[in-house]
Amino acid sequence: MSSAVTLTTMRSHLRPFRDYQARHFLWEVSEDGRVATLTLNRPDRKNPLTFDSYAEMRDLFRDLVYASDIRTVVLNGAGGNFSSGGDVFEIIEPLTNMAMPDLIAFTRMTGDLVKAIRKCPQPVIAAVDGVCAGAGAILAMASDLRYATPAAKTAFLFTRVGLAGADMGACGILPRIIGQGRAAELLFTGRAMSAEEGLAWGFYNAIHEADAVLDAAGTVARQLADGPWFAHGITKNQLNQEWAMGLDEMIEAEAQAQAICMATQDFRRAFEAFAAKRKPVFEGN
Amino acid sequence: MSSAVTLTTMRSHLRPFRDYQARHFLWEVSEDGRVATLTLNRPDRKNPLTFDSYAEMRDLFRDLVYASDIRTVVLNGAGGNFSSGGDVFEIIEPLTNMAMPDLIAFTRMTGDLVKAIRKCPQPVIAAVDGVCAGAGAILAMASDLRYATPAAKTAFLFTRVGLAGADMGACGILPRIIGQGRAAELLFTGRAMSAEEGLAWGFYNAIHEADAVLDAAGTVARQLADGPWFAHGITKNQLNQEWAMGLDEMIEAEAQAQAICMATQDFRRAFEAFAAKRKPVFEGN
Amino acid sequence: MSSAVTLTTMRSHLRPFRDYQARHFLWEVSEDGRVATLTLNRPDRKNPLTFDSYAEMRDLFRDLVYASDIRTVVLNGAGGNFSSGGDVFEIIEPLTNMAMPDLIAFTRMTGDLVKAIRKCPQPVIAAVDGVCAGAGAILAMASDLRYATPAAKTAFLFTRVGLAGADMGACGILPRIIGQGRAAELLFTGRAMSAEEGLAWGFYNAIHEADAVLDAAGTVARQLADGPWFAHGITKNQLNQEWAMGLDEMIEAEAQAQAICMATQDFRRAFEAFAAKRKPVFEGN
Repeated sequence: MSSAVTLTTMRSHLRPFRDYQARHFLWEVSEDGRVATLTLNRPDRKNPLTFDSYAEMRDLFRDLVYASDIRTVVLNGAGGNFSSGGDVFEIIEPLTNMAMPDLIAFTRMTGDLVKAIRKCPQPVIAAVDGVCAGAGAILAMASDLRYATPAAKTAFLFTRVGLAGADMGACGILPRIIGQGRAAELLFTGRAMSAEEGLAWGFYNAIHEADAVLDAAGTVARQLADGPWFAHGITKNQLNQEWAMGLDEMIEAEAQAQAICMATQDFRRAFEAFAAKRKPVFEGN
Repeated sequence: MSSAVTLTTMRSHLRPFRDYQARHFLWEVSEDGRVATLTLNRPDRKNPLTFDSYAEMRDLFRDLVYASDIRTVVLNGAGGNFSSGGDVFEIIEPLTNMAMPDLIAFTRMTGDLVKAIRKCPQPVIAAVDGVCAGAGAILAMASDLRYATPAAKTAFLFTRVGLAGADMGACGILPRIIGQGRAAELLFTGRAMSAEEGLAWGFYNAIHEADAVLDAAGTVARQLADGPWFAHGITKNQLNQEWAMGLDEMIEAEAQAQAICMATQDFRRAFEAFAAKRKPVFEGN
Repeated sequence: MSSAVTLTTMRSHLRPFRDYQARHFLWEVSEDGRVATLTLNRPDRKNPLTFDSYAEMRDLFRDLVYASDIRTVVLNGAGGNFSSGGDVFEIIEPLTNMAMPDLIAFTRMTGDLVKAIRKCPQPVIAAVDGVCAGAGAILAMASDLRYATPAAKTAFLFTRVGLAGADMGACGILPRIIGQGRAAELLFTGRAMSAEEGLAWGFYNAIHEADAVLDAAGTVARQLADGPWFAHGITKNQLNQEWAMGLDEMIEAEAQAQAICMATQDFRRAFEAFAAKRKPVFEGN
């Protein structure tokens, strides 16, 4: 490993993403650069995903590991729907004519998007309205927090196109969110989960009206962005890391992870603010 | 491995199970051979399990891997109860007099039944009414989907006979369905879970009146049987396979599993039916 | 390994804990020595934890493996609150000045307390009223069963002091109790979970009024203490052991664990009591 590679991962070599020029979706960043909002933006087609938008999102979420500014990402869709998933004619039809090496290249690429969303240190917060189907449902599932409107209809409908519910990690991740029995029903039948069900089952963290859900997601995103974001990145990392650990291993892993956080100045800043009865200002170090 | 062994696992060598002659329960199959209904049938005793019925179910579910016809199985009990579990005098009394090699042979045999239910590609759908206790509760737990009547009382009551809640996988499987805290209560106390609790906790997928629950389970079984059943088998397999995988491993596992499904004609059939605005007819290849 | 070490782990060499003299909390034991009640007892400060109380609880729960009398432990706090967690001036301030070896020694020590609670064979039952925060919330989480009052406010508020939600196993254990999405919200935001939420999400097993919650926890503790406590210890052990096992491995593990229980006299006692229509008297062998 060259020292150049090492250096680019150091904090002093991080780079800003507030001016990232998105090609296949909208990317808007708050004035202070902390909160990014990614909007799937083909509202006439209910924001389907295409090969291009998959790949660009994968690359962007991968690169956010090296962002100097972005601390949280809000994920949503334009025009009253979240996403209708992989476009039938732009994605599904070509797939029916592909050879196996191309098929596995595609399923690995979509899986890489889920991995990238899970691996970036920024909490990703989905605001879900209307149609949230197929790969769209997967994007919501892969997020850290999920807010919905009463009209949200989330369907893991792969079975409707002759495929398995095993798409982008759904057979492993969805059961951990809503339980094995409910996940099995959604994945075998492809039926839509209503907003009310999603709230009762722990898929959604809260329900808000359509004109308020993006603000609600943004409010939590802002709260987290102004919090101890280095520690938030550790929280997210441990939620990922401990997925399949035994009890002893996860407790030891957190002893190490929390000791890292206790060695930060943010921990001292929080204590000093508490002692002085003022609000802490975190710097991520 | 002889080539004969290999050949019997090929699709062209599968064999029908519609005429399977059950000895220790009822086995009824729909006219087209797709939906089987297994009914525990000692209603005067609330359908207890015996050494014989355990073993026959284990063998049957194992053999269903090689079925050419059956695509879903509905599991239920005769006469208003699901199952009272291991018979006290036919199973528990003999166990109290067995040497360790026989005890472990018994617990492995019962565990093999759960493994067989989980490993066959057919989704197994339990219709639960009345008493659902001990090994009966395990059979419901081991199923893929569960429907109940308001009178269903499901009790993992092993503690009542001086045993651990650790029976046939319950300490590992039940927490994934209803959460670790609720599972601990049921397994430590042996108390019955009501239908209402089971629905709220994600054990049951829905509640139906006693005269409708078998039809409801059958309707879902029919829907799945007429769906892409090869892909359903992959869904079920991945739900099993990813039980203890890390995030990266499960996403890669699904990239492979879904690529397999994308190479089937059923995937193409579904797309073509969608494009032609007709209902797809799946053939499992 | 010397034979002396071996002997001290044998049943005949277990020792009583009914007269344990606690220094940093209250320890009260029922007349028959079966049910212990551990009360955090600094009510003026809402029962914060200190270095001393952490260490003493860790040692006590570790030693309970060798108790000849105690069969269940009720965990609660004095004066209308459960615990406010690590004391800000007695724990957090010193931590902000520690070198890494001391930090990791601290986080491992607190993790060892969770391990000790999980590893002792006695079911631990938390009765939660009022404030249940930080390490206090972890103690409730680490318990086997949890009862709360309507006023219980449980907050994994590590983020409020600039730390990660990854504390003492929370990123691994909490998702298994309440689901991955709800756990993420509590760990990222540090917000309090209400009693009503905790019940709906499976964190609490039931809600009782403030003047009844300790009795309710005690009633369950008594029921379990008079039950087959050797088997309860196996249930608890398997709930721990199977945390990260695959399906096949957990079913085989339970075949072995349950065969052990079937070889006990308690199993025979339960059957004989059933056959004679009387209540079984368990002896833990």
